[in-house]
Amino acid sequence: MTQDERQQLEEVCRLMRVWILESSHAAGSGHPTSSLSALELMAGLFFTGQLHYDASDPGYVNNDRVIFSKGHASPLLYALWAAAGEIAEDDLLTYRDYDSSLEGHATKRFEFAEAATGSLGQGLSIGVGMALSAKQIDRVPYRTYVLLGDSEMTEGSQWEAIQIAAHYELDNLVGMLDVNRLGQRGPTQFGHDLSAYQQRLEAFGWHVEIVEDGHDLDQVETALAFAQKVSGKPMMIIAKTIKGHGVSFLEDEEGFHGKALDDDQLKRALDEIGEVDRSVRGRIAPPKRVELPPLKPLPAGPLEYAVGDSHATRDGYGSALKRLAPVLPHLVALDGEVSNSTRADVLRDAYPERFFEMFIAEQNMAGVALGMALRGKTPFVSTFAAFLTRAFDQIRMSVHSGAGINFVGSHAGVSIGQDGPSQMGLEDLAMFRTLPGSTVLYPCDAVSTERLVEAMAHEPGACYLRTTRGKTPVIYGNDEEFPIGGCKVLRHSDRDVGVVVAAGVTLHEALAAYDKLHEWDIPIRVIDLYSVKPLDAETLHRVAEATGFVVTVEDHYLAGGLGEAVASALADRPVPVFQMAVDQRPRSGEPARLRKAEGISADAIVGFVSNVANSMQPTLH
Amino acid sequence: MTQDERQQLEEVCRLMRVWILESSHAAGSGHPTSSLSALELMAGLFFTGQLHYDASDPGYVNNDRVIFSKGHASPLLYALWAAAGEIAEDDLLTYRDYDSSLEGHATKRFEFAEAATGSLGQGLSIGVGMALSAKQIDRVPYRTYVLLGDSEMTEGSQWEAIQIAAHYELDNLVGMLDVNRLGQRGPTQFGHDLSAYQQRLEAFGWHVEIVEDGHDLDQVETALAFAQKVSGKPMMIIAKTIKGHGVSFLEDEEGFHGKALDDDQLKRALDEIGEVDRSVRGRIAPPKRVELPPLKPLPAGPLEYAVGDSHATRDGYGSALKRLAPVLPHLVALDGEVSNSTRADVLRDAYPERFFEMFIAEQNMAGVALGMALRGKTPFVSTFAAFLTRAFDQIRMSVHSGAGINFVGSHAGVSIGQDGPSQMGLEDLAMFRTLPGSTVLYPCDAVSTERLVEAMAHEPGACYLRTTRGKTPVIYGNDEEFPIGGCKVLRHSDRDVGVVVAAGVTLHEALAAYDKLHEWDIPIRVIDLYSVKPLDAETLHRVAEATGFVVTVEDHYLAGGLGEAVASALADRPVPVFQMAVDQRPRSGEPARLRKAEGISADAIVGFVSNVANSMQPTLH
Repeated sequence: MTQDERQQLEEVCRLMRVWILESSHAAGSGHPTSSLSALELMAGLFFTGQLHYDASDPGYVNNDRVIFSKGHASPLLYALWAAAGEIAEDDLLTYRDYDSSLEGHATKRFEFAEAATGSLGQGLSIGVGMALSAKQIDRVPYRTYVLLGDSEMTEGSQWEAIQIAAHYELDNLVGMLDVNRLGQRGPTQFGHDLSAYQQRLEAFGWHVEIVEDGHDLDQVETALAFAQKVSGKPMMIIAKTIKGHGVSFLEDEEGFHGKALDDDQLKRALDEIGEVDRSVRGRIAPPKRVELPPLKPLPAGPLEYAVGDSHATRDGYGSALKRLAPVLPHLVALDGEVSNSTRADVLRDAYPERFFEMFIAEQNMAGVALGMALRGKTPFVSTFAAFLTRAFDQIRMSVHSGAGINFVGSHAGVSIGQDGPSQMGLEDLAMFRTLPGSTVLYPCDAVSTERLVEAMAHEPGACYLRTTRGKTPVIYGNDEEFPIGGCKVLRHSDRDVGVVVAAGVTLHEALAAYDKLHEWDIPIRVIDLYSVKPLDAETLHRVAEATGFVVTVEDHYLAGGLGEAVASALADRPVPVFQMAVDQRPRSGEPARLRKAEGISADAIVGFVSNVANSMQPTLH
Repeated sequence: MTQDERQQLEEVCRLMRVWILESSHAAGSGHPTSSLSALELMAGLFFTGQLHYDASDPGYVNNDRVIFSKGHASPLLYALWAAAGEIAEDDLLTYRDYDSSLEGHATKRFEFAEAATGSLGQGLSIGVGMALSAKQIDRVPYRTYVLLGDSEMTEGSQWEAIQIAAHYELDNLVGMLDVNRLGQRGPTQFGHDLSAYQQRLEAFGWHVEIVEDGHDLDQVETALAFAQKVSGKPMMIIAKTIKGHGVSFLEDEEGFHGKALDDDQLKRALDEIGEVDRSVRGRIAPPKRVELPPLKPLPAGPLEYAVGDSHATRDGYGSALKRLAPVLPHLVALDGEVSNSTRADVLRDAYPERFFEMFIAEQNMAGVALGMALRGKTPFVSTFAAFLTRAFDQIRMSVHSGAGINFVGSHAGVSIGQDGPSQMGLEDLAMFRTLPGSTVLYPCDAVSTERLVEAMAHEPGACYLRTTRGKTPVIYGNDEEFPIGGCKVLRHSDRDVGVVVAAGVTLHEALAAYDKLHEWDIPIRVIDLYSVKPLDAETLHRVAEATGFVVTVEDHYLAGGLGEAVASALADRPVPVFQMAVDQRPRSGEPARLRKAEGISADAIVGFVSNVANSMQPTLH
């Protein structure tokens, strides 16, 4: 940077400082001081030729990527893009309005936000996903930059991302750590001790560049330039900064976190900053043009299951990944060190370059998948259903990035047996059902598993597929179709007194119950609710009203699962719904013994349904 | 240890090796090889005078604590207690049976298990909670030992625990890292490179002792003895071990993780081990006797709220903590660096020794709280409701330890406004409802908040209280009682056509809707469902049947929340239930604007209820 260039950039910084204060003042809330600390760091990245980005085409495959992991510094994010000429000055004043795309913490509604952030400790994982995409999948030379706050370095997810970035030698990933010493409620653990961060990061295998004064544009430029020299490891720039920098009464002061200035404070601050030239703008360097070879989908092989044979649905998952990999050239799989259990190892063995071992670190795994999805991949993420709970915050946040991620949880329910409650996924349906726009699937056999894996790959939003550890018989023919939002009426007569709705392992219990009830001349309908969300309310309404009552059976806790989904869908109808589900702390034991103990076995269904049928006899039509 | 003692201990180890193989063989599943790698490490702890424990009184306040974070090594845990004479040899063969307390991964059903483990990367946090209890609350000299697997060191939660243990200078905490090189599906990231772990741990401020041969009892004893010399920091013993040690065809081999030996393999293994003396036993040293001064509860101050005044329920939470601290001498509070938002800082300022800053690391915070609860404390854990999702796995697991933990989530719902979706707790009710035996509370004013905080302190299991950011009017008198499992019928007439069920912020929307509907002569009942779980089904049944329909309104996603709880409770009744809830991705904006956009405002209730009332008119009684 020449002296002239630096002087001009300092002018741009002064203008951005004003915008940060003005936009948050107009909103009446926001985080101006957390924005001011990182201002020169990010200005140095954007406007000294380090960042390469085509603003006319945010999706361009070789744009560098910038993620604000400290998502509360959104006034800075918007000021940067205003300085780049991409946001009108007036629009900055709509910050945090309902109709504005400039949200309090940026989401994908703002076109230059790479991902929605704001729950701390997530941006680095997303960055790892993008850097891994660039380096190992697309093989394009862009860099991914992640702005990090010092407070969020206490999140374990950061250290998961840090270790995986080193493991995959992501020298196209640059972290920018804004050490401003102050968290929300007071000083951080390490204050301005940059060496505390340096030691930890170096021990984890990163290259570290220290910036003693994070407000000195020359120092920032020098540190950033190192990114081109570091090879085989990711780089972290650790910068000492001042929270509220540039406004004397805010600088390094407690009590200003997350607070907009009032009228008087704004006036004092603007007076101190003095006249600014509101016409100065920065310039972002263009990206190198690259061309990716088009990926040609190839046809998938046919299914070759025989009705009556037994296969675990988790095997169906592994088989589907391998079968679909040629059809879906963007398909990748990530697994949390249990690929031999989830069967993601079937893909790994067939297409090792499409598989990413994420070790036992589920939060980062979800974040990496999001980063990959945002770069156009179709990620499948697997571990035990129980351990996906670990990534609930990342899963929740991924919805606000609007990306499609496919989660697959194996070892669902008490039916895993002897390993005991710690390994049993019993709240996974509830967890994934909560998310707006999510899809929740629970197949009962290998054929439906294969078909649903294919369907979810094309579905937007967060998709979840629940698989079972033990084998279950194939009940569907290879050509059966399974639209998302559908269900299958498997047993049916004109005389049915009630309907049993089940999915996955309990569907087979329901079918066995049907046989016994049939012997007793208690005819029931049986529905395979393989699509728990969206749910085929129309069929449920019709079937419920054609019979006398509905019984749901699931290997999942009572609250939030299949039963409540059905009860909710039928809540405006007069047909009674009864839920059979796991309703106590389960324990170790043989799977069938546990289903019996939890009252979700065929015998339990027979007993319950016959009781209800008998008690309702007089009123039945 | 004399040579004789060592020889005797080696005999005990040989017997334990046999038990590990026999018990898992009898169960047909389990993790014998992961047990064998840590056998000498734990035998050295238990039977060389290092561990101090009164087995006749597992709850004794100065017993050392041993946590198996690698919970799958349960065959070793049970073998140790059998070697201590506390489990009969025959009972070992009931391992993993439904009726046995020796579960696949130990839970608190086994009396010598300090906590339920099995979801990896949780034991160290629990240990931090116990060590912090001992050092800073009870001031007793026991030590807490945590057995860790190398695979689980990739979990970010470990590094959260590691940083907090160093922060609180827990020199009464000893980690024992069993580096056996092999995870479930193959080699770990660092294999037998002990220095990789050492560098990281030292960078995080721990003292490290290396054991080059984790099967050498003398080396183990020497390393453990260091615990007495280390001051001001926690200590990690990093031991190089061999998975499957002691059985040649299992040693350091892939493919044996989580597998019991078959008949033939067992015979070969036992032949190789040779005759064992089944009468040898080890001896655990007794603990030092200490006496804790009895804690005398003092009476709580009265509530002094005025009906009609406005207070945020989060302020009610802070006030309750401070008011109840004298009454509940075991009450402690932990917060994730947002105590000025959750208002836990009110307790911190009044009783600093009862408050523990956990920084932004929610997983560890939940684990530490569990450790404290298991040592007799009554922990309150607070952060934004949204960020409790981060600790779902720890929260889920805490249920299997049977301890009472009180979680408090602030900033619930879209009603937080401008900060946007990343900060909005919209799935918290669903998350906590799933857990068996959980309690879920959602007060609408300061009085009910204060009363419910008191009630939950006495409630077993996982309790959750949801608070609101903005102010709401006090509607209850200071002496009103709020039993858990109850509700309040706030508006009532003989002519009511329907009932609106709400809680928290939407209760006030419902009351405003009532006023408007009253003007239009559409009388409705209004219920404050402050106890979302357990739920007052009896009152709901009665009220629903006395009126024509039920409408639920909540500032929470549609699935798994208050609405589905009510729909589920009324599913067997013919009264229709309609849910009003957040059903799309929310955005930033002014709170009232957002409630309007999500259709949970007073106006939305008025519109919906009047429509339903009109459409049902002919059928109403």
